[in-house]
Amino acid sequence: MKLTHLDENNTPTMVDVSNKDNTTRVAVASGVIEVTREAYEAVVTNSAKKGPVLQTAVIAAISGAKQTSNLIPMCHPLMLTSVKIEVEEIPEIPAFKLYAKAKLVGKTGVEMEALTAVSVGLLTIYDMLKAIDKGMVIKNIQLEQKSGGKSGDFNR
Amino acid sequence: MKLTHLDENNTPTMVDVSNKDNTTRVAVASGVIEVTREAYEAVVTNSAKKGPVLQTAVIAAISGAKQTSNLIPMCHPLMLTSVKIEVEEIPEIPAFKLYAKAKLVGKTGVEMEALTAVSVGLLTIYDMLKAIDKGMVIKNIQLEQKSGGKSGDFNR
Amino acid sequence: MKLTHLDENNTPTMVDVSNKDNTTRVAVASGVIEVTREAYEAVVTNSAKKGPVLQTAVIAAISGAKQTSNLIPMCHPLMLTSVKIEVEEIPEIPAFKLYAKAKLVGKTGVEMEALTAVSVGLLTIYDMLKAIDKGMVIKNIQLEQKSGGKSGDFNR
Amino acid sequence: MKLTHLDENNTPTMVDVSNKDNTTRVAVASGVIEVTREAYEAVVTNSAKKGPVLQTAVIAAISGAKQTSNLIPMCHPLMLTSVKIEVEEIPEIPAFKLYAKAKLVGKTGVEMEALTAVSVGLLTIYDMLKAIDKGMVIKNIQLEQKSGGKSGDFNR
Amino acid sequence: MKLTHLDENNTPTMVDVSNKDNTTRVAVASGVIEVTREAYEAVVTNSAKKGPVLQTAVIAAISGAKQTSNLIPMCHPLMLTSVKIEVEEIPEIPAFKLYAKAKLVGKTGVEMEALTAVSVGLLTIYDMLKAIDKGMVIKNIQLEQKSGGKSGDFNR
Amino acid sequence: MKLTHLDENNTPTMVDVSNKDNTTRVAVASGVIEVTREAYEAVVTNSAKKGPVLQTAVIAAISGAKQTSNLIPMCHPLMLTSVKIEVEEIPEIPAFKLYAKAKLVGKTGVEMEALTAVSVGLLTIYDMLKAIDKGMVIKNIQLEQKSGGKSGDFNR
Repeated sequence: MKLTHLDENNTPTMVDVSNKDNTTRVAVASGVIEVTREAYEAVVTNSAKKGPVLQTAVIAAISGAKQTSNLIPMCHPLMLTSVKIEVEEIPEIPAFKLYAKAKLVGKTGVEMEALTAVSVGLLTIYDMLKAIDKGMVIKNIQLEQKSGGKSGDFNR
Repeated sequence: MKLTHLDENNTPTMVDVSNKDNTTRVAVASGVIEVTREAYEAVVTNSAKKGPVLQTAVIAAISGAKQTSNLIPMCHPLMLTSVKIEVEEIPEIPAFKLYAKAKLVGKTGVEMEALTAVSVGLLTIYDMLKAIDKGMVIKNIQLEQKSGGKSGDFNR
Repeated sequence: MKLTHLDENNTPTMVDVSNKDNTTRVAVASGVIEVTREAYEAVVTNSAKKGPVLQTAVIAAISGAKQTSNLIPMCHPLMLTSVKIEVEEIPEIPAFKLYAKAKLVGKTGVEMEALTAVSVGLLTIYDMLKAIDKGMVIKNIQLEQKSGGKSGDFNR
Repeated sequence: MKLTHLDENNTPTMVDVSNKDNTTRVAVASGVIEVTREAYEAVVTNSAKKGPVLQTAVIAAISGAKQTSNLIPMCHPLMLTSVKIEVEEIPEIPAFKLYAKAKLVGKTGVEMEALTAVSVGLLTIYDMLKAIDKGMVIKNIQLEQKSGGKSGDFNR
Repeated sequence: MKLTHLDENNTPTMVDVSNKDNTTRVAVASGVIEVTREAYEAVVTNSAKKGPVLQTAVIAAISGAKQTSNLIPMCHPLMLTSVKIEVEEIPEIPAFKLYAKAKLVGKTGVEMEALTAVSVGLLTIYDMLKAIDKGMVIKNIQLEQKSGGKSGDFNR
Repeated sequence: MKLTHLDENNTPTMVDVSNKDNTTRVAVASGVIEVTREAYEAVVTNSAKKGPVLQTAVIAAISGAKQTSNLIPMCHPLMLTSVKIEVEEIPEIPAFKLYAKAKLVGKTGVEMEALTAVSVGLLTIYDMLKAIDKGMVIKNIQLEQKSGGKSGDFNR
């Protein structure tokens, strides 16, 4: 099985996408952070008023998506045309689930941008809550769907 | 319960650590990426020779730790004195588990640096393997231990 | 009158602060953005609910402060120990006034960090409102006060 | 009045420009820094010889334009095709006025890039002169004109 | 002889490429680092096993190529479609020679990206070996070839 | 011979400097770019007036020094206390020689910062002149001297 990010010498390489078509590519990723009841309440109570914890996470997630090619060594620099974030409150765990949808008209997919946005958003929630709870766990960062490009669509 | 990253107006703020002591602070975090058997074999077979997938992840994790304050809005810029990464191969799942240990002599802890290193390292493994398997799941990014600073030690 | 950022050949230089003391240094800067009545109402009405425009500006301002030494060529890289932002609503103009207070225990002042935070925060408000009003004007970005360091305190 | 940078949940979002045309877009912005007579003379006298203060500002402004999407959270990453800076000396105030013209062939406008270039350029002048004068004031950062794109041209 | 990066006022400027064609542009650069016998053996012996020194250099070179427009003030931000690195071992000097090939479909050439990749890769080898040998010399960073664009091809 | 940047598993690592002393550390590096007579004259003639080519190189070199830990994977983030650049004109080759002196009060040396400054400065000269001459060669990037720290001084 070929690892496309390794060249014929097994050296990491930025895959050549020069000849790929400029098409609209979309990727949706998600991930969860499980928190204590106390931390959860601190967020949603606050959220009822101004929502600064989750808003900080949303903004960090969008900014993080734009840093993908600086963070992931073999990722191409891309001109994202859209990043949209949603945070779902899951009181019964309790947890927060963060979705990121990234879009591009270009030569390569945006899965890594969506996954990076989710990761940075969840890390930001961790940071905002860590004075209350250091035991929080980030879980299930995964691609939900992907469309556009020759490798075909993906739906979990 | 006070969220330290919000000020008296519920506005996000970079906590004032001016008066904290410069002490040695250490944090260890970990996380897992579950992959298909085929992807796992592609890495470890290759690893037997040159290990480029996991080495790229290690390097990205260290570089990622240094980007923490650019990614997480309320994080202080820090002068990390050490970042050390280990990757454990878990053939029975199959999965890779990545550990990051961050160190600092300074005024605030390095949990976020360790967690960011883990996240970026795991995202890099995803990126290197995504041509084989888009269904990989990143799991259980968590703080393992923390020492130094007034808030006390943490051991999971 | 000596320009400290030029050396003996009139070449720009990063001033040598190696021998300066590590003291607590504080700087407060402010700036204003004047907007149309319609744009003002869009923010504060929204603000009553969730405040996303001004919160985005606050977060951008804090992140911007951390980018100062990447933006201003002769600025030293610094380890800010605190950045605090406040936004004042001025309905009678209408306008928003943004204050940034930056703090450091180190060898050089943080005026540029406070001024950069203000600039980036105001630019972010412009960006968030420019679909309504492209004629907004950013005004009076200035140092309000400064303390710490050998050059003495400053109060406007 | 719709704020395009907020989605249906009032969450900040990077506007979807995927379906916009790739057209040539131009924006010109300007801003002023008022300085003391003494600081003004230090620059222009020096300028007569080598101009390092204003040249540093020009270079910082161009570099700053390229950082726009890293600084302003909802800005799209863009491939600027041109950035041109001019500095006008205004001895009668005394002040310096900085103009930035940004250009792009792409899907969204470059107002923020022009405004960011102006802001960073003026902050750099402040930094270069602050040993002489900490009371300098940055004023009237504003869009002068804009063309290209569906929202129509703007001329102040 | 016209310096294209200076405008009519001799001010540095980012050349306007708005009207240039989007064509495939390729550049290859190379450079050498001469090391002591002892340092050379430490790398290649190690390389026989896992190659971490040269692999770190390869990854840094690719990441460095993506930072070109942040490092070189007048460079346009570009969307590289490929970066490929090769390291040649030259036991008889002893030295390592690093080649970088950069590719783009766009409006301007990628010489600077290839040259920056080479520089960062060689600096990384220096960093990895400097505990053994501080006298290493980086030599002959140069463009090997270039194609695409109106200014014609270049072959050394 | 131990490569300090590889740990016991031959994995790249950011060396632990937590226990090192905070001392004043200085490094001087240099490098040369050989150019055609025509390119040389374009710079120095211009230099007689305003010097924008070499000034751009100086500013890029200082900014580049501050990016060292983002470019070189195993480098520690550092708070440089001084960066000073000099450019020597060598008409008889013709060439330009760039010197960078970096300083820090901290736990690890600044060789890489000085070498990175030199590299970025020379790449910037290349960029500014490449419309005239693509055959320029960057040569002899090397450490000139180093002091401070336990590993002893270095003088070439």
